[in-house]
Amino acid sequence: MSVTAAKGFTAAGIAAGIKENGNPDLALVVNNGPRRAAAGVFTSNRVKAAPVLWSEQVLKSGQLAAVVLNSGGANACTGPKGFQDTHATAEKAAEVLGVGAGEVAVCSTGLIGVLLPMDKLLPGVETAAGQLSEHGGEKAAIAIKTTDTVHKTSVVTKDGWTVGGMAKGAGMLAPGLATMLVVLTTDADLDSATLDQALRAATKVTFDRVDSDGCMSTNDTVLLLASGACGVTPGYADFAEAVRQVCDDLGQQLIRDAEGASKDIKVEVINAATEDDAVEVGRSIARNNLLKCAVHGEDPNWGRVLSAIGTTKAAFEPDRLNVAINGVWVCKNGGVGEDRDKVDMRYREVHIVADLSAGDATATIWTNDLTADYVHENSAYSS
Amino acid sequence: MSVTAAKGFTAAGIAAGIKENGNPDLALVVNNGPRRAAAGVFTSNRVKAAPVLWSEQVLKSGQLAAVVLNSGGANACTGPKGFQDTHATAEKAAEVLGVGAGEVAVCSTGLIGVLLPMDKLLPGVETAAGQLSEHGGEKAAIAIKTTDTVHKTSVVTKDGWTVGGMAKGAGMLAPGLATMLVVLTTDADLDSATLDQALRAATKVTFDRVDSDGCMSTNDTVLLLASGACGVTPGYADFAEAVRQVCDDLGQQLIRDAEGASKDIKVEVINAATEDDAVEVGRSIARNNLLKCAVHGEDPNWGRVLSAIGTTKAAFEPDRLNVAINGVWVCKNGGVGEDRDKVDMRYREVHIVADLSAGDATATIWTNDLTADYVHENSAYSS
Repeated sequence: MSVTAAKGFTAAGIAAGIKENGNPDLALVVNNGPRRAAAGVFTSNRVKAAPVLWSEQVLKSGQLAAVVLNSGGANACTGPKGFQDTHATAEKAAEVLGVGAGEVAVCSTGLIGVLLPMDKLLPGVETAAGQLSEHGGEKAAIAIKTTDTVHKTSVVTKDGWTVGGMAKGAGMLAPGLATMLVVLTTDADLDSATLDQALRAATKVTFDRVDSDGCMSTNDTVLLLASGACGVTPGYADFAEAVRQVCDDLGQQLIRDAEGASKDIKVEVINAATEDDAVEVGRSIARNNLLKCAVHGEDPNWGRVLSAIGTTKAAFEPDRLNVAINGVWVCKNGGVGEDRDKVDMRYREVHIVADLSAGDATATIWTNDLTADYVHENSAYSS
Repeated sequence: MSVTAAKGFTAAGIAAGIKENGNPDLALVVNNGPRRAAAGVFTSNRVKAAPVLWSEQVLKSGQLAAVVLNSGGANACTGPKGFQDTHATAEKAAEVLGVGAGEVAVCSTGLIGVLLPMDKLLPGVETAAGQLSEHGGEKAAIAIKTTDTVHKTSVVTKDGWTVGGMAKGAGMLAPGLATMLVVLTTDADLDSATLDQALRAATKVTFDRVDSDGCMSTNDTVLLLASGACGVTPGYADFAEAVRQVCDDLGQQLIRDAEGASKDIKVEVINAATEDDAVEVGRSIARNNLLKCAVHGEDPNWGRVLSAIGTTKAAFEPDRLNVAINGVWVCKNGGVGEDRDKVDMRYREVHIVADLSAGDATATIWTNDLTADYVHENSAYSS
């Protein structure tokens, strides 16, 4: 159902020829109103792709009529020409849809440092516009895939209103944001300030805590568009929770499809002095290559968890740290705990709990193991 | 020549039975004076192994008569019993050498969270003491190996005085310090304050900039012992430079022997606003798994370099960044530069230059590529 689950939206996904292998590579999402409120969250990488710079600018109005997304090229580190190409893409979409270019966001994903084939992309926008449909959400989700093995969509429906969305992302998953393109839509009748508040609250505890390989992209974009087509204005708490649920579901799908991963690791930090401490410790554990290799080898190597905790500035005493792996407290009070042979790591889901014994704050970070397949996939990506 | 190149030192390396495979696992280095000045630098990991806690304490006097080192067990996260074991090790060495336990440093390396087999270690100290020799430096260097494929030693001799040393380390190489045990000796006649100053200055620009896998150990220790046996007091600058040279050489040996690596990557950051900026950017590049995979695949993927730079707080403008890989400026002004096909990456040495165009400070960080062999070696370590 994807981005067309909510009323008031049409979408399309086509093969414009940007990808040399002929796979779908161009998506268009259109908000047919009556409202065209929108909000966005973007990468915190200071090297931002042209479409990010463009879309950030466009979003300042709090209005979006359409989003053009392409895979097959990130249009990052492409200089003034790259920005002109993004601008031309928005102009083309505006022209064929009869809206203003300043109401069109653009998202790109793929290899950095390569100009997009505009001779294919611009006609593609026209083709996609001709195929817009209330059932086009699935095709749009398929067209934004890069190394994703599956397309990702999610929908939550409440009392007369819906939040739906699509995501792409399989590598370079790391906070601020996880490397991804995400478009969320809702038919709820809400203004852009409310959308912005709900979207930031949701991404902070979902996509920002998905950290597959610690690498932050130049192109991360999460957009939320509201059509108001259902005529209902939900309460903020209900709406924010629905947005969080969709973001959480899409984030989980990203982790499960992370490049080369064989394990999904839930790192839960408990009893931290503050939530910031919990997040810092969770990230440090999630980014520890040695631990990620150990998990791949189904080795409950809690020493590497403690070693990762020790590199942080969080409040804790080394001799009060406890670590559980898949329910077995293998480390107690900073030392040897229950028998590590009791830990069963045969399954894809791995759950690590780090107890800092320093307060009552909690945070959960999701990551993956580090595998030879990850190395292989990312050694060969651009060649 | 190792730790016995400088006059006034004896050493031994034996198989005490700590390692199940019967390989050498216990080393002893003794300073026979006349001076017994010493300085040390330790891991900045807040989860410190028992021998680190002990040796930090011992070093406060600025005096060391001996160092006991074992491989086959890190004695980290082992609680009060672990600390008692370290204490007992120092007491045993003190007893057989006729010195005070407070003059004996202890270093351990191996798996975290396992108690040492003291019934083997203590008799081993006695055996090692019986084999102390002015030619024992090589054997000591061999006995501290863990996953190292070669032992590492280095010697610099100047006008009548010598600085020599040994190092172990092959994984968990990351700053603060690189994960390693290092013992340096000199026969120069210097006090502990001078040793401390020279050692800190040297490690800051050598071991602290060796970052193989971003993982910081619980056991890192670098010790510098001075016997004064040559009777010469060199000028500070000359001595500091000799210590830097030995540290630099040992650091390079660590990188070349890093677990599973197929490439040694020199990340040189130039034209940074400050040295701190240069180090921060260099580390960010050196820790980027995607870039490390790309280098493994001999892919000059400069987009991943820019992406890594963009995650830092260093002063730079994205459109003024330049990147050279093996001498080819593949990125100019934040965009496409010279033809990437000109980059020859067939050899083990890879040189990445990141030009921030923001000042005149420089720093070099050494790292390795990320390989399937690294994953394999670290998946199987403790099982």
